[in-house]
Amino acid sequence: MVPHLVTALTGPINELEQRLLDSMPAIERWFRLEWMEHTPPFYTSVDVRNAGFKLAPVDTNVFPSGWNNLTPAMLPLAVQAAMASIEKICPEARNLLIVPDNNTRSSFYLSNLVQLRRIFEMAGLNVRIGSISPDLKKATTLELPSGESITLEPVVRTKGRLGLKDFDPCTILLNNELTAGVPGILEDVHEQYLLPPLHASWAVRRKSMHFKCYEEVCKRFGKLIGVDPWLINPIFDTCTNVDFSSDEGLEGLRATVDATLAKVKKRYKEFGIKEKPFVVIKADNSSADMAVFSVRDSKELQALRRPKSKAGAAASESTVLDVLVQEGVQTHERINEAVAEPVVYLMDRYVVGGFYRMHAERGVDESLSAPGSSYVPLAFAESMHLPQPGVRPGASAPNRFYMYGVIARLAMLAASYELEATDPQAEVYA
Amino acid sequence: MVPHLVTALTGPINELEQRLLDSMPAIERWFRLEWMEHTPPFYTSVDVRNAGFKLAPVDTNVFPSGWNNLTPAMLPLAVQAAMASIEKICPEARNLLIVPDNNTRSSFYLSNLVQLRRIFEMAGLNVRIGSISPDLKKATTLELPSGESITLEPVVRTKGRLGLKDFDPCTILLNNELTAGVPGILEDVHEQYLLPPLHASWAVRRKSMHFKCYEEVCKRFGKLIGVDPWLINPIFDTCTNVDFSSDEGLEGLRATVDATLAKVKKRYKEFGIKEKPFVVIKADNSSADMAVFSVRDSKELQALRRPKSKAGAAASESTVLDVLVQEGVQTHERINEAVAEPVVYLMDRYVVGGFYRMHAERGVDESLSAPGSSYVPLAFAESMHLPQPGVRPGASAPNRFYMYGVIARLAMLAASYELEATDPQAEVYA
Repeated sequence: MVPHLVTALTGPINELEQRLLDSMPAIERWFRLEWMEHTPPFYTSVDVRNAGFKLAPVDTNVFPSGWNNLTPAMLPLAVQAAMASIEKICPEARNLLIVPDNNTRSSFYLSNLVQLRRIFEMAGLNVRIGSISPDLKKATTLELPSGESITLEPVVRTKGRLGLKDFDPCTILLNNELTAGVPGILEDVHEQYLLPPLHASWAVRRKSMHFKCYEEVCKRFGKLIGVDPWLINPIFDTCTNVDFSSDEGLEGLRATVDATLAKVKKRYKEFGIKEKPFVVIKADNSSADMAVFSVRDSKELQALRRPKSKAGAAASESTVLDVLVQEGVQTHERINEAVAEPVVYLMDRYVVGGFYRMHAERGVDESLSAPGSSYVPLAFAESMHLPQPGVRPGASAPNRFYMYGVIARLAMLAASYELEATDPQAEVYA
Repeated sequence: MVPHLVTALTGPINELEQRLLDSMPAIERWFRLEWMEHTPPFYTSVDVRNAGFKLAPVDTNVFPSGWNNLTPAMLPLAVQAAMASIEKICPEARNLLIVPDNNTRSSFYLSNLVQLRRIFEMAGLNVRIGSISPDLKKATTLELPSGESITLEPVVRTKGRLGLKDFDPCTILLNNELTAGVPGILEDVHEQYLLPPLHASWAVRRKSMHFKCYEEVCKRFGKLIGVDPWLINPIFDTCTNVDFSSDEGLEGLRATVDATLAKVKKRYKEFGIKEKPFVVIKADNSSADMAVFSVRDSKELQALRRPKSKAGAAASESTVLDVLVQEGVQTHERINEAVAEPVVYLMDRYVVGGFYRMHAERGVDESLSAPGSSYVPLAFAESMHLPQPGVRPGASAPNRFYMYGVIARLAMLAASYELEATDPQAEVYA
């Protein structure tokens, strides 16, 4: 049962699909060679947007939750990929500690933990959940609507190691974005594998760095398959120290928005695209303090003004931010009336599944990663990510999902470049 | 849609299932450690038999055909496993040559080749089919009932390399058992990966060697999970130079059959099994010249007598053979009225799927690998090989398939021990 999908599958996207299918062995080999030189993030989810004429990742998450949205048919792929990954990282591994998000006790998030525990148990590990939340004083078992239960236990820190009472893991898997910064309890864990590394958290990551790496990946990939990289890569620019409390503070941002819109317009004209371009403005450090804004004209920036922070306000409430100004990519996929965007899940270097995030109250040019969104585990389940060579472009759901899987892997590759560039230990091996 | 299955799931098999499930992380870790020391065959299929009180592999094939019987849902697992395998063997691989069986032009076998081609193309290789049959003089395209087609091309041999006109593969995949011996055209291919190696063919393999290795594997595995290895390992013995043309020639075999039956009877008594034991007699080198016989009493051996070979008869028609006498394992699985046995498919170290071989005209104690058998791609498709912890033993198809997958991997591990022991190049690295 595949929900009805509407996609504006006309023009360049079909050409892109055809090019990707024709180049499949070359593409797979290219990734294989890239992974000889670069280490993929341990696990990744990528939000992809298909505008009908353009396909691009809009968010690359290296601490993905939402694993519970994968269907049972996708699980074996995730388990097999987890096995391959563990074998490379620590073949003797016996115990795995998952460190969850501190604040989330929603049953959705807990189901995500149950799913992760299931995947790694089936891959051959004893799995327990160790919370770093200072509020968790003792082991707490929570029941889920599914009838399953999950026990959160307070971590025990010793010199160089993190564990639980009577549980000494060789690998620690973070499922916590550490948006508030890296807590001391995770620092100097030198005797265990801590995955993903701390510099993958938003305490260190910058969207601009990610998209700079993605741009580089796209240039090389575009050359490989002979397509204009713009078809998969949104134009972007950054603006540092934007002060949202005054008109003057927004001046630089206004100029960047104008310049970016002009570049996009030029490309639209070149490709004969009739839509009105827009840009998306995001906090470069993914701060929860700033929503994602879609802007069609720099005059709209006025609406982003906010009162000056009070003296002594927390840094997170600052009105001065570094921002990313990025070409907006509409999503032309719809399930019934709701706007939808595919989310691709990867474990190690492998696409293991995906689902649609949909939001009935949002527009095609808005972020769907917001309260009120719902998830449809879809067609990835039916047809997986295997293409159907020979089928006319635009006519085959599996071919579309293959295409999404390729774009997601390009974003994952960009994340691996990014993590190499920001690795504080890099000079040790250089 | 899972066909109705009847299995005598009583007694020790449920205990075994429970033990396997409880030990899952330990089992998966054990395999992981074994694969650090040993190289799995490139691909493998294992025929498994479930007697209700005992579970054992009866045939381990390292040149498996029948890939076409895997369902579309299993393909992504096979592709992912193929990717992992290629990455280890030859990450730069671009071209793969599949060498098919010489004699088989049945559409079933050709569909198997189409499926293998599909798997490796999706794993990122250019795949072509190169026949070593002297009868194939030029490229020949054959149409399949599915509408697909496949082109067989004559191989071109140069010093040290095998290829096609204008196609130089870095890896050659044999899908040919070489039952008639290793042809010269495959010898001294030193500059390419030839997989599986030539000593994996029945020109070199011996069933007795395989089951000796399997016995060793079972002893260690039995210790790991705390079960009597007999529950997964059939008793066997060998008899060399059995002359089927005379009563005296059969004398030694008679003694071996009696001794083996006595051992099995003792075990049956110990486990309270009421069935009448039987043994299976097979050619040690898997010669097509000798069928597989089931014998409940050494007196039945009389029926195996055959006329003396004529002077000058080909060696393959010899009446003198080395044979394996093995404890028979009934299959208690049935689909409708037909006797069925599961066949598990593995790529590299991963279980990627399986199906049931069934035969309406055979008994529970007979070989089903015979003309008239049909295939049902089954429940492995629905539930894959992931177990469902917490479900009562015997009540869960996924748990049964997990159990089959473990036994198949034990047989595959035995094949890897076997190939190491018979590797003619082994002393080079020793």
